[in-house]
Amino acid sequence: MTSETPAPGAPPRQSPRWVGPVVFVLAMGLVALAGLLAVSINERRWESLRPTLALKPVGEWETDSAVWGQNYPREYETYLATRIDTTRTKFGGAFPRDYLDEDPNLVILFSGYGFSKDYRQARGHAYAIADVTNTKRVAAATPATCWTCKSPDVPRLMAKAGVKEFYATRFADLKAEITHPIGCPDCHDPKTMNLRITRPALGEALAAQGRPIGEATHQEMRSLVCAQCHVEYYFKDKTYLAFPWAKGTTVEDMLAYYDATNFSDYTHAVSGTPILKAQHPDYELYQTGVHAYRGVSCADCHMPYRTEGGVKFTNHHVASPLLDIATSCSVCHRWGEEEIRGRVETIQTKVQGAKLAAEKALVQAHFDVAASAQAGATDADLAPLRARLRHAQFRWDFVAASNGMGFHSPQEAMRLLGDAAGGAQEVRVMAARLLARQRISAEPKYPDVSTREKAAAVSAAFGAGSPPRLLP
Amino acid sequence: MTSETPAPGAPPRQSPRWVGPVVFVLAMGLVALAGLLAVSINERRWESLRPTLALKPVGEWETDSAVWGQNYPREYETYLATRIDTTRTKFGGAFPRDYLDEDPNLVILFSGYGFSKDYRQARGHAYAIADVTNTKRVAAATPATCWTCKSPDVPRLMAKAGVKEFYATRFADLKAEITHPIGCPDCHDPKTMNLRITRPALGEALAAQGRPIGEATHQEMRSLVCAQCHVEYYFKDKTYLAFPWAKGTTVEDMLAYYDATNFSDYTHAVSGTPILKAQHPDYELYQTGVHAYRGVSCADCHMPYRTEGGVKFTNHHVASPLLDIATSCSVCHRWGEEEIRGRVETIQTKVQGAKLAAEKALVQAHFDVAASAQAGATDADLAPLRARLRHAQFRWDFVAASNGMGFHSPQEAMRLLGDAAGGAQEVRVMAARLLARQRISAEPKYPDVSTREKAAAVSAAFGAGSPPRLLP
Repeated sequence: MTSETPAPGAPPRQSPRWVGPVVFVLAMGLVALAGLLAVSINERRWESLRPTLALKPVGEWETDSAVWGQNYPREYETYLATRIDTTRTKFGGAFPRDYLDEDPNLVILFSGYGFSKDYRQARGHAYAIADVTNTKRVAAATPATCWTCKSPDVPRLMAKAGVKEFYATRFADLKAEITHPIGCPDCHDPKTMNLRITRPALGEALAAQGRPIGEATHQEMRSLVCAQCHVEYYFKDKTYLAFPWAKGTTVEDMLAYYDATNFSDYTHAVSGTPILKAQHPDYELYQTGVHAYRGVSCADCHMPYRTEGGVKFTNHHVASPLLDIATSCSVCHRWGEEEIRGRVETIQTKVQGAKLAAEKALVQAHFDVAASAQAGATDADLAPLRARLRHAQFRWDFVAASNGMGFHSPQEAMRLLGDAAGGAQEVRVMAARLLARQRISAEPKYPDVSTREKAAAVSAAFGAGSPPRLLP
Repeated sequence: MTSETPAPGAPPRQSPRWVGPVVFVLAMGLVALAGLLAVSINERRWESLRPTLALKPVGEWETDSAVWGQNYPREYETYLATRIDTTRTKFGGAFPRDYLDEDPNLVILFSGYGFSKDYRQARGHAYAIADVTNTKRVAAATPATCWTCKSPDVPRLMAKAGVKEFYATRFADLKAEITHPIGCPDCHDPKTMNLRITRPALGEALAAQGRPIGEATHQEMRSLVCAQCHVEYYFKDKTYLAFPWAKGTTVEDMLAYYDATNFSDYTHAVSGTPILKAQHPDYELYQTGVHAYRGVSCADCHMPYRTEGGVKFTNHHVASPLLDIATSCSVCHRWGEEEIRGRVETIQTKVQGAKLAAEKALVQAHFDVAASAQAGATDADLAPLRARLRHAQFRWDFVAASNGMGFHSPQEAMRLLGDAAGGAQEVRVMAARLLARQRISAEPKYPDVSTREKAAAVSAAFGAGSPPRLLP
């Protein structure tokens, strides 16, 4: 016992009388605050759990995203943002852009094909039905295959009629049944909300590579749902949607595939070249880049996580990450937003420069081949030129038709565009030698294609069999 | 008082008798361990401080790195490792490599210049004197300018004779006075060990851009000391070392600079083109890449920090970071070492492919121009071809002559190589039209240059004015 212990029998030291009630009141206050905190925490938890607790069942074939949106309001609201008409990123320009107005080279490069007449920027997912029904590229003979990526009504119709039979239908005949633009069920299972693949072509292409779709990880699925549509594809046997991936997914692999089957999308009206039109091989180009190398998925950048209140959700406003750098790029790249934008635009500016240089060479190559033909070169003479030109143009289009102005893989984009320009110039060397056979040494009289209208007139004249005379 | 308080007068509860001594012994043990720890910490601190406490003074003109090495043994030992002869990275090949054996295209591309006869890999810094005195590129008329980057004896001689006067001396006349290879004083102040710039050309080039060298940060200095030599440069007025940076440091900026002054390093023996030989523009190429963008210096990757015992020091074995991924790349990139190596080699493989494609086109372009000349084209006819070919070859050489097979800036490397190949093919188009004027439509008879010996014979024949007949 220490000296501070009260001596036996001494009265214990007393606190003033007011201390007890004050301590009691303070304690009550603290208990009340703790209670409020607990209620608040529970409310936020409740807020984040509510959707899954109060889910309204969604039918197996419910293709109206608004119905799904009752359960997932945040995902649905951000999805609706894909309808926003706005000025976009530097390389997005005014929205939606008309590529033929911007770049008349395209009128010549696609001469003989629908893209030469109508090539506008595809708008957001919510516009899928509107845009595909408004484009002049759809004609009476267009197969229903062109609906495939546009609507969640498609899997329902495929299930009803059969996949092959669906593709073989005419596009126009399904207009009444296909009414909902790209939406929830295209990528989500309505029962579990797990990601799923609903379009057959991707599964078939992966299976052919020995990669069953069922073995994909969740992170892989966060890219593969996009790869249902954002890929290079073609219509096998006129209507069956297929990916040219049997030999691999590089440009060289696809060219080998297409060459082996003699496939072409159209015959070029100016040069007679059997052209491969690249679609939008975003997934394949991305696969060669550093983001894919590091396991970053499409969704990580294009559908980044956000939080509202206590709820974390995925932003379904699929668009350029530059529109929301803070939640996309900045998650990994702790740089200033303007630094990030500057870096991206530096990369894209170089790609754009190489793209335009390749276009100039390709346009001249088409005219050079045409001039050789006008000078009397035969199809046999021109076959090696056309084969080279076909490869060169596909390399260019692989980058040009992709979203992101090459950002998905800057080095690969430059490789392809450099090869495209070099290949086109090689064609021009060969054409100059063919012209030399006819004692022609001056360069062809290249038509003025500096505006869309002038280019369209030249393209139309070639298409009508009454081309301008190119020989000097 | 609670019921547990001992009743007044009761004896206090006692611990067993053995507890006291055991606690005492344990406490003593802990104190002893803590003491040992303190001693160990102090020893390691002492170990790291010792060099600065026991520095031997180094003279202002001490150019023998071994003397500096007595004060900085770890830096000196790693510097000595630049003498290691070894098989290097995938794109380093056997060491030292003979580029002309490996790639006979170079014999043609440099035809009419020393690099066509002797082009071996520069070995590490410690070999600088040995390599520059052994190369066949040094001749009787070579100015002392070629010593500039090879030895710390150079600033001493410059201080003695004057900079301009030093450059104007003959190389051979200074052999006795220049004996120490690149070493400590080239980058360090002997009094403070601060980084410093000892070669005038860099300071002059930066001053012309309005960037006084004295305002560089320490991190900038960690690149600028390398930029004293690892840059594009030329001999102004035959002997004065200068960087072509007045308009900027991109290829286009340098071409504009060189064209404005009509400078060329040599006239190509095959095509008569006034060629710009790129040196090793590592610093300029790096500046366009992502590492420079993020403020990573040359030293961060090529001279990473290491620790030995308690001492942190900079590894002076300047070499490929792939030789020591753990201390270089892995500091920022937390990937597996083989993943890192794989990524780097993927990038370099693409650059190598584009490099070889550009070489093939350039070699053919030189022969096409020569064929046109043989067919009677005049210098006036050939001027636009030669101007284009000069630009194309410089673009190729800018990447080819740089270290790292384009890794310093993969997208920029592909841009330059793509432009080089496309430019060379454009020259070939122009040449084909010139040949057509002479009624020649077949392609020239390209000489066999598939081995170094065959290429050297062709180059020598052009040099001797008795070229093979190229006309078909």
